[in-house]
Amino acid sequence: MKFTSMLKERYQKYKTVLCLGLDPVLEKIPVKDQSNLEETLYTFYSTMMEAHQDKIMAVKPNIAFYEQYGIEGLQALKRIINSARSLTIPVILDAKRGDIGNTARAYAKAAFEDLEADAITLSPYLGGDSMEPFFQYNEKGFFILARTSNPGSLDFQKLTLANGSYLFMNVAEKIAEWNRQFVDGIGAVVGATHPEELQSISSMFAERAFVPLLIPGVGKQGGDFKQVMGILDGVQYPRHLVLINSSSKINYAWQQHPDVDWVTASGIEIDAMQLQ
Amino acid sequence: MKFTSMLKERYQKYKTVLCLGLDPVLEKIPVKDQSNLEETLYTFYSTMMEAHQDKIMAVKPNIAFYEQYGIEGLQALKRIINSARSLTIPVILDAKRGDIGNTARAYAKAAFEDLEADAITLSPYLGGDSMEPFFQYNEKGFFILARTSNPGSLDFQKLTLANGSYLFMNVAEKIAEWNRQFVDGIGAVVGATHPEELQSISSMFAERAFVPLLIPGVGKQGGDFKQVMGILDGVQYPRHLVLINSSSKINYAWQQHPDVDWVTASGIEIDAMQLQ
Repeated sequence: MKFTSMLKERYQKYKTVLCLGLDPVLEKIPVKDQSNLEETLYTFYSTMMEAHQDKIMAVKPNIAFYEQYGIEGLQALKRIINSARSLTIPVILDAKRGDIGNTARAYAKAAFEDLEADAITLSPYLGGDSMEPFFQYNEKGFFILARTSNPGSLDFQKLTLANGSYLFMNVAEKIAEWNRQFVDGIGAVVGATHPEELQSISSMFAERAFVPLLIPGVGKQGGDFKQVMGILDGVQYPRHLVLINSSSKINYAWQQHPDVDWVTASGIEIDAMQLQ
Repeated sequence: MKFTSMLKERYQKYKTVLCLGLDPVLEKIPVKDQSNLEETLYTFYSTMMEAHQDKIMAVKPNIAFYEQYGIEGLQALKRIINSARSLTIPVILDAKRGDIGNTARAYAKAAFEDLEADAITLSPYLGGDSMEPFFQYNEKGFFILARTSNPGSLDFQKLTLANGSYLFMNVAEKIAEWNRQFVDGIGAVVGATHPEELQSISSMFAERAFVPLLIPGVGKQGGDFKQVMGILDGVQYPRHLVLINSSSKINYAWQQHPDVDWVTASGIEIDAMQLQ
């Protein structure tokens, strides 16, 4: 099924905007026998997804956290993606890929054919032709970095252009253009840590094209869930196109809630990110 | 050994600037029995490296071409990197990674600890703090995208900033700054397809800091080897810091030279990219 249709259908059913990041840090995973890395990662995340599936819109494994464990980590990733698929939870592969023609094609093949993700994150620096090979998988979703949540994002994203606007806004405008020109699965990554900029970007999208939005930075990084929803509701952003991500705060919630088992602990943090 | 020292030593010995890209496309690999993908890729590239080792400065596997073949492709990549290491050829992992703090750390661990590359390519959009976790491996090399060789690079890299300069030049200036501030392994990717811009970037580096340069785009993409060397010699760029890459033209040289075996055919194209 088309990624945007999956989102629409799923939102109607569950009325949530939560995207659950799946970023394994072995030392923090509360599973006793860690002798088999692949099994540990798989058990941890398949249990978490199954227990809380009706409160999440999508999952977002960041491939870096699997690559750090080599082949075994990637084997775990494949199994975790399969597990999400069997629960019909859309999978966004957070990979921030970006390379020229042939190479982009190889990355797209890896993400969509080998790993069978439903969507991917992309980095824009190489420009439109580095993304078109992905867009050819026109059922899929594509979240292009516009404004990221980290302090260093100031280095380039907030450079002022000759026309007076910021670089990140120019990238966001291109995303709207590509969304209209190519496929409606083309969306943007906009961090929750810059509310005024989320405001200006989402207003621009509201005028030009409602693109899928992936919003990291809520929780540990300081962004506020209610404030983000307030901004988006203010411009009448369709809620089924909004994905607010939280990773470590949910993954390792047992550290904050020592009195309950880890599945329940994750559930507490998941509940804190539900609408109303 | 430190990456920049490896380059210096190797240049003194072999007087070459050629970086050999290792980008497997299974259908084009002239090995008869392709039943075992890992073995096919490994045999092809280990044979090529061994035959021509004294005419190459470094090898640059682009990880996308391995990821497209899944786990088996990545197993081949590990073996190919090991083979390069046993021949003491420096390995630049072309991965164009770029992500925030913790995630960057995981990518760095994957590249330098699991895959044991000597250097990596990085994408700058997320800014300095997305690169610092890599720089902490201070023996390694880091090639940050400044000006790429593809047509779509116009979309963002050639945007004019409020101060009148192009975005790519601002990125290049940051690279020089980081090189002076952090480690001398910090370098730049500058495509060969824009000679005037290679001229202006290399002049700027000549004034501020001679950073390692990785130059793709010669060969199939239209850049000219002699012209590139002319520009760099013109600003007295230290030749041991120059790496001019060629991938498919050498990898699949047998298609252009049907009268000789594939190893000899690759050698013909390698010879065409030697100094004088």
